[in-house]
Amino acid sequence: MHIEVAATLQDCQSIGLTGKNAVVIDVLRATSVIATALHNGASAVVPAETAEEAHHLFDDFPSGNALLGGERNAVKISGFHNGNSPLEYTPETVSGKTLILSTTNGTRALKLCDSATETITAAFVNITSVVEYLSDKCNDIVIVCSGTAGKFSLDDALCAGMLISLISDRRVVETDDLGKLVLQFYGSETGNISDKLSSCAHLKYLQSKGYQKDIDFCLQADQFRVVPILKNSRLITA
Amino acid sequence: MHIEVAATLQDCQSIGLTGKNAVVIDVLRATSVIATALHNGASAVVPAETAEEAHHLFDDFPSGNALLGGERNAVKISGFHNGNSPLEYTPETVSGKTLILSTTNGTRALKLCDSATETITAAFVNITSVVEYLSDKCNDIVIVCSGTAGKFSLDDALCAGMLISLISDRRVVETDDLGKLVLQFYGSETGNISDKLSSCAHLKYLQSKGYQKDIDFCLQADQFRVVPILKNSRLITA
Repeated sequence: MHIEVAATLQDCQSIGLTGKNAVVIDVLRATSVIATALHNGASAVVPAETAEEAHHLFDDFPSGNALLGGERNAVKISGFHNGNSPLEYTPETVSGKTLILSTTNGTRALKLCDSATETITAAFVNITSVVEYLSDKCNDIVIVCSGTAGKFSLDDALCAGMLISLISDRRVVETDDLGKLVLQFYGSETGNISDKLSSCAHLKYLQSKGYQKDIDFCLQADQFRVVPILKNSRLITA
Repeated sequence: MHIEVAATLQDCQSIGLTGKNAVVIDVLRATSVIATALHNGASAVVPAETAEEAHHLFDDFPSGNALLGGERNAVKISGFHNGNSPLEYTPETVSGKTLILSTTNGTRALKLCDSATETITAAFVNITSVVEYLSDKCNDIVIVCSGTAGKFSLDDALCAGMLISLISDRRVVETDDLGKLVLQFYGSETGNISDKLSSCAHLKYLQSKGYQKDIDFCLQADQFRVVPILKNSRLITA
């Protein structure tokens, strides 16, 4: 199995996704929200790049069948039902509904993965399910670290390293230079996930905005068994 | 002092170079060639993006005053005097001459740094000189890892990590998420520079093409005291 890692959205273009399986990671918080919403019964999550696009998509649903969720600079978009906190997406809130989600980085990354053979999303909260899915079904993978405002982000990198490490327990894996670096980071002796990410800039930004509970939730591995997969521009359970 | 790291050329755009000092790294081999040529008496190194541009620049020099150097896919460009091996740039070859250099990644990176306040180049071979220069004169630095064919490359990342580590011995440094990751990689317990880079894809490619001597040369720290600085589109000694 061959695994490449894109440091940021921009780097997808140099790597190329055609004929490959894309795995989008935006740990804080979009891909954690996606896993949570689908686990809690959302019928689908539809990524929308802009708030306007999200409103248009929403207007096509019968009343009560869809929800608008998302953030700009970590804050709920004005006029939306929910923000980008996974804790908001309880079964009571999302069960049976389509979540239309617009976030700064994660949903843009999903849109950019159009040319991939298949696109799934990963986060710590559903990592083992993703590992099993990829190990069983895929041979040529690009892990897309969504990053923050176009910049490399340590939370996504650590999740990528854990993903490669866990897949390597099941399959023979070749990876690229960034894959080797994030694998080395994941395997380093500096404590658990939270310890390794204590200096992550986006984590600190979310802390400063009062989102510690979201952070604690997003950094806990294997809370759900769910693999979100993109089909016809909607994420559903694989 | 604030240090940001761009994983690839593409990532410079998200980071933004305006008002900042750019440090371009292309260890294997462009920035090692640049340091060597200037140390060995070249009057300047002029980066050229294409072979055509290099020939045009060359034609403006009186006979014997300039040299054409560079590579495509690690091989000397047809019609050029020299390739991209630092070992070719002896005092006998370059002293008193202008080297017009066109390489796959390093010279493209230099062209992209137009908007920076000042641009210098770094490699292992001249790292302490660069550290002293930056520690004395700069407060806001972007390290640009040139990478290979648009992809992140471990050799540049390790050099970036060493640069940040050595600057941190002299100044209080704040760095971004990628800066923290490459710093952690440089500080990890896995042997010396060569050991840490033993799985680097571009290093292996150069090995397969018979460039082991170049690699050995480029990975030896502090062979020269020289700081190449970009002035009027030419690299000269700072």
